[in-house]
Amino acid sequence: MKAEVWYGRNDVRVVDIPEPPSPPLGWVKIEVERCGICGSDLHEYVVTILIPVDKPHPLTGGTAPIILGHEFSGTIVEVGESVEGWNIAEGVAPDACQVCWECYSCKRYNYLACEKLAFTGLHTDGAFASYVDVPAYTLCKIPDNLPFDQAVLVEPLAVGMHAVLRALVTAGDNVVIFGAGTNVLSTLPCTMAAGAAKVIVVELARARKEYAEKLGAYAVFDPTECDVPAEVKRLTGGLGADVAIECVGSNKTVPVALESVRPRGIVVTAGVFESDTPIQFNNVTFPEKEIKGSLAYNGDFARVIGMLNDGRLNAEMMITGRIGLDDIIEKGFQELINNKDENIKIIVSPK
Amino acid sequence: MKAEVWYGRNDVRVVDIPEPPSPPLGWVKIEVERCGICGSDLHEYVVTILIPVDKPHPLTGGTAPIILGHEFSGTIVEVGESVEGWNIAEGVAPDACQVCWECYSCKRYNYLACEKLAFTGLHTDGAFASYVDVPAYTLCKIPDNLPFDQAVLVEPLAVGMHAVLRALVTAGDNVVIFGAGTNVLSTLPCTMAAGAAKVIVVELARARKEYAEKLGAYAVFDPTECDVPAEVKRLTGGLGADVAIECVGSNKTVPVALESVRPRGIVVTAGVFESDTPIQFNNVTFPEKEIKGSLAYNGDFARVIGMLNDGRLNAEMMITGRIGLDDIIEKGFQELINNKDENIKIIVSPK
Repeated sequence: MKAEVWYGRNDVRVVDIPEPPSPPLGWVKIEVERCGICGSDLHEYVVTILIPVDKPHPLTGGTAPIILGHEFSGTIVEVGESVEGWNIAEGVAPDACQVCWECYSCKRYNYLACEKLAFTGLHTDGAFASYVDVPAYTLCKIPDNLPFDQAVLVEPLAVGMHAVLRALVTAGDNVVIFGAGTNVLSTLPCTMAAGAAKVIVVELARARKEYAEKLGAYAVFDPTECDVPAEVKRLTGGLGADVAIECVGSNKTVPVALESVRPRGIVVTAGVFESDTPIQFNNVTFPEKEIKGSLAYNGDFARVIGMLNDGRLNAEMMITGRIGLDDIIEKGFQELINNKDENIKIIVSPK
Repeated sequence: MKAEVWYGRNDVRVVDIPEPPSPPLGWVKIEVERCGICGSDLHEYVVTILIPVDKPHPLTGGTAPIILGHEFSGTIVEVGESVEGWNIAEGVAPDACQVCWECYSCKRYNYLACEKLAFTGLHTDGAFASYVDVPAYTLCKIPDNLPFDQAVLVEPLAVGMHAVLRALVTAGDNVVIFGAGTNVLSTLPCTMAAGAAKVIVVELARARKEYAEKLGAYAVFDPTECDVPAEVKRLTGGLGADVAIECVGSNKTVPVALESVRPRGIVVTAGVFESDTPIQFNNVTFPEKEIKGSLAYNGDFARVIGMLNDGRLNAEMMITGRIGLDDIIEKGFQELINNKDENIKIIVSPK
């Protein structure tokens, strides 16, 4: 089969390799229908962050070379021993997390904090390929009438949904979202699905600002052109937002987010930070504000699938490109790196 | 009557002044039995922080000179018009907060975040005096068998209780408390009353370390002598504490507190910070930790009074001095400033 394999930094190739073997105990084999390109795929392409190079991953034993791809939909084609409740020909959108189920966090179903957390497509072979083997516990069923094109977006939408759940967004909340990359463009519709009143987006790039408006943002502010907390307060009766979600990972944004929320408001950090952020904690203590981390997702797939299926979420607008596996480097990875602001999600058909 | 009056920075005097007038509409007049000296009284003594000097307070109209004292117990001696449910001779421990009841936070009973928040003894005349007038809505009844000596500590204990409630401490939690000033010495018994398993205190000063041990700390660590997160993990099965409460207000402590808690653990900031703290927010985002501010108290007096009354809290050990009003400067304020580490709470009898 054809697969996109990561050999090292700046060395990702589409090659012909053998299909994965029959799935081991507790695993299934999936024929991949669609696989989306994630920001973390691009990160691994330009710098090495997560893929094990020197020593095998403690859970999966995986090391480079590894097939990339972890946002995918497909069909079960083979079921391993001891797998119950899953059948050949069922459509699935698998969770990318592979975990130990033995550590403190796993035992409390907080599997994202697993001591040995691994990701399909980073720590074991992924889904930029015709077939992929995954543990049966990662599977989420997709309804027959939900197209694979939509189901491929369950994973990135689950990231936004998780941030919204961590932020406890509920009916009538005013929410300000910092950044409008894929994460925020999944956070925005999930925030609206949670019943938010006004959703305000703060973003620099023109194209992303337009997407945020198309997706239903009440207002979109450019932080270089206005005083964001003042504008947020103006739109919220002088009070500030109930919730801010930081998807940028900038050391300038968290203090602005803190200033933009009301007393006892919640700031969720969902970005990846390259440097320390200076915080005057009196701005947390005195108005009793909260800062909460949100990482990826945690059992949120079924919720997203249900809301895609009943129409409360729409994945279609997030897709800005559809390509085949042969074009993945040039029209996928390079396109996303060179035209970052013009794209949201490019999805790949590996057949 | 005699009263301790704040005229300005470093200018606090015990003087003879007229008794407060009959209480206005909705207020009561209280004969003060005991009034404790708070850290914020000392702050106002050495620097001016809260007392209005140039313009009147927006809620109370108060300006210096003002009678200090906001941690107090006493007896109602006169009831103003329209006050219902309160009678002469009832024992009370009044909440120090005076609020507008009209702003966003007041309407949600989050009165500590009142836009016009005022404190008895800082923004109106306080209780280092024979008599004080306060709004009836600040009153909390004390049971007949709870001594005024104990009831005077309801206010500082409520600060600790509030931090424990903000931290959601519950049965079996392991808790680490940073700092062992009055705040922490009120936080410690409240944490234990909430059912904590191990309470670990981190403190520098010898005398305070001893108090923490006397009050039941499972372990007391000196941060200059050990690696605090490593020691906390050692005592919690390698995991880290469920909760950390920061009562120091140091820019070094919050990162250590964050490192000392488990995935999804909670850090409560309850100190006053003089400078910014550098935070690497990946340490919040990835393990989905939380940071929550806790300011003073918020409807927590009745809870503390109940637990003092049934013996689950004991205020006696926190009292390190009992003096009359004439001695308040020398044996109260100066003693606390000069022998900070040897004292916890000095209480004054103004009669």
